[in-house]
Amino acid sequence: MASGADNVFMQRALQLAEQGKYKTSPNPMVGAVLVKNGKIIGEGYHRRAGAAHAEIVALQQAKENAAGSTLYVTLEPCCHTGRTGPCTDAIIKAGITRVVIPVKDPDKRVNGKGIRVLRKAGITVTTGVLRKEAVQLNESYFGYYKLGRPFIILKVAQTLDGRIATGSGDSRWISSTVSRKEAHILRAQVDGIVVGMETVRKDNPALTVRKVAGINPYRIVLTRSLRFPPKCQLLDNNDDYKTIVATTAPAAERFAKTKRGRNLIYWRLREKQNGILRVSDLVSVADSFGLRSLLVEGGSMVATAFLQAGLVDKIVVFIAPLILGNGIPAVGDLNIRKIEQALALKHIHFSPSGADCMFVGYPDWKR
Amino acid sequence: MASGADNVFMQRALQLAEQGKYKTSPNPMVGAVLVKNGKIIGEGYHRRAGAAHAEIVALQQAKENAAGSTLYVTLEPCCHTGRTGPCTDAIIKAGITRVVIPVKDPDKRVNGKGIRVLRKAGITVTTGVLRKEAVQLNESYFGYYKLGRPFIILKVAQTLDGRIATGSGDSRWISSTVSRKEAHILRAQVDGIVVGMETVRKDNPALTVRKVAGINPYRIVLTRSLRFPPKCQLLDNNDDYKTIVATTAPAAERFAKTKRGRNLIYWRLREKQNGILRVSDLVSVADSFGLRSLLVEGGSMVATAFLQAGLVDKIVVFIAPLILGNGIPAVGDLNIRKIEQALALKHIHFSPSGADCMFVGYPDWKR
Repeated sequence: MASGADNVFMQRALQLAEQGKYKTSPNPMVGAVLVKNGKIIGEGYHRRAGAAHAEIVALQQAKENAAGSTLYVTLEPCCHTGRTGPCTDAIIKAGITRVVIPVKDPDKRVNGKGIRVLRKAGITVTTGVLRKEAVQLNESYFGYYKLGRPFIILKVAQTLDGRIATGSGDSRWISSTVSRKEAHILRAQVDGIVVGMETVRKDNPALTVRKVAGINPYRIVLTRSLRFPPKCQLLDNNDDYKTIVATTAPAAERFAKTKRGRNLIYWRLREKQNGILRVSDLVSVADSFGLRSLLVEGGSMVATAFLQAGLVDKIVVFIAPLILGNGIPAVGDLNIRKIEQALALKHIHFSPSGADCMFVGYPDWKR
Repeated sequence: MASGADNVFMQRALQLAEQGKYKTSPNPMVGAVLVKNGKIIGEGYHRRAGAAHAEIVALQQAKENAAGSTLYVTLEPCCHTGRTGPCTDAIIKAGITRVVIPVKDPDKRVNGKGIRVLRKAGITVTTGVLRKEAVQLNESYFGYYKLGRPFIILKVAQTLDGRIATGSGDSRWISSTVSRKEAHILRAQVDGIVVGMETVRKDNPALTVRKVAGINPYRIVLTRSLRFPPKCQLLDNNDDYKTIVATTAPAAERFAKTKRGRNLIYWRLREKQNGILRVSDLVSVADSFGLRSLLVEGGSMVATAFLQAGLVDKIVVFIAPLILGNGIPAVGDLNIRKIEQALALKHIHFSPSGADCMFVGYPDWKR
């Protein structure tokens, strides 16, 4: 049974987990706290993929003192050998008597097996403590396993009246510097960013993580035309070889032979009869490529295509205190005729982001 | 000089003033507190136009005890005889020794004269205490005098992506019940509501104050066509004779002769060469008619016309957590080509309103 103290120590473990933010992908953020006689005797968090798991860091800190203590860890301990050995072995060996976790690891290699191994070794395991918070912390990790495909976030920077650019395509800068930093934080949290060619041509974005410390995600351009502009950061600043062109097979073959097309990664998508590329294909290929989360940054056509396909799991809208009138809408035709058919967002929250309002919600596709 | 205690008592006076909300127009809300030896000995607020002023109510409560006390009043006391006698006389007669006010009354009949009369009588007058709060409380009253025309609020109920209806005109209900109540609170604060004929035809609104207690404002339809729908609440439920048709002179003459056109108030507006009616004309007539505040409720064309004319002083947008895609935009063409030319809102704030976000701002026309 969980106690009030369990909540407090799990809260601390969640805090620790957050310190791994932007660095652990494809692993989740995990924090661990070892408690003996009501006192913390060891703490740790997972620093980056390949580094020691949080439990191990905490155990190393506590040393032989760990025997007889309670371990609070924000995710079920692993019981398989990955880049590091199974945590369950280390926990049993250290003489831990109780393990408290919020939630099972959705990774099929663990998913309850870790708990069973611990219980079999005579350790008391308490589950469900701060479950919601733990899932929220790693929402794209949990989303990936639940959905069986990358977790997809749609980001929009718009005026109050829902425009992302003037009719002539001017969009700099709709959102505040604080919001642009928030957008970089979003980038740092995902494995890949998706944009359409109109965004490449109008904004010439670098799509890198600059305003915060973090790893650059893959930069994916969804395009049939391959009409890259003469100056193009995605092609010119590709030293990390993370620019991906998602296009038709013939277009990929053609462009790969050109000087600018070297060193790019090509994803070959099938065409529909009308020649349009399917975002569902892009998502499948991204999944095969090992990406667990995608950030769709626009423009309007790409955002609309993902919404039409029902392939948006989270929406983040930066609403600038501007009125533009006619211009490019954030979202195009979704074939909705009645308000009651509109796409509803749940679990919404909004907060100031510089001069803007940052509005976050989760599409309710089942409604 | 103002002291900390001055702020506390003025805060109380502002609280009292607010109790007159929705009832004092065309007068401002005013509250008053009488303080002697650090203790409140009388309180009052202006209940409705024609009733006693706040100062008088407080004086009546304190009776002869008022002599030697300090009066906190949220607006400069009047020195002219309106429906009630001048407050300055009563204050002097009661033997008040100090008067604290946030701000001068912008009404030309007062506007500093009240302060001079009090000072001439030997009373100490302190000004500027909680000035910002006092002006905010009666923003449309102060706006009316500052602008020399009615204070104009634009209200929009839209989806997150800036749509006020589907392409076929369905708009019920975009906003939550809480937001619809907030909209009635807005109605209760103004002297007139303006809508276009498309709103009358699509929504058939009553434009009355129902979800809160308050006085119905005038209901103004801006229309050239006079194509009222067969069932029309504005014509059918006009027992208070507050429905106004703002149209061309010939159209007014024609419609006034019909059965449905009886009992309506007509405002005759000049036409531009292209036959379009000017919202600036509507605002002039509203001013002459004695309206000090207008609420523009839409639709898109009317909202756009007011924005094009620079005749919006405050914007209140209810943002529902819905994505609609193509549909009727909140705002139409404002002829803006660059983001830096977009209409910026200042002093913005936003807060939850049921499931919605209520976003409030003030257009910065000078930018």
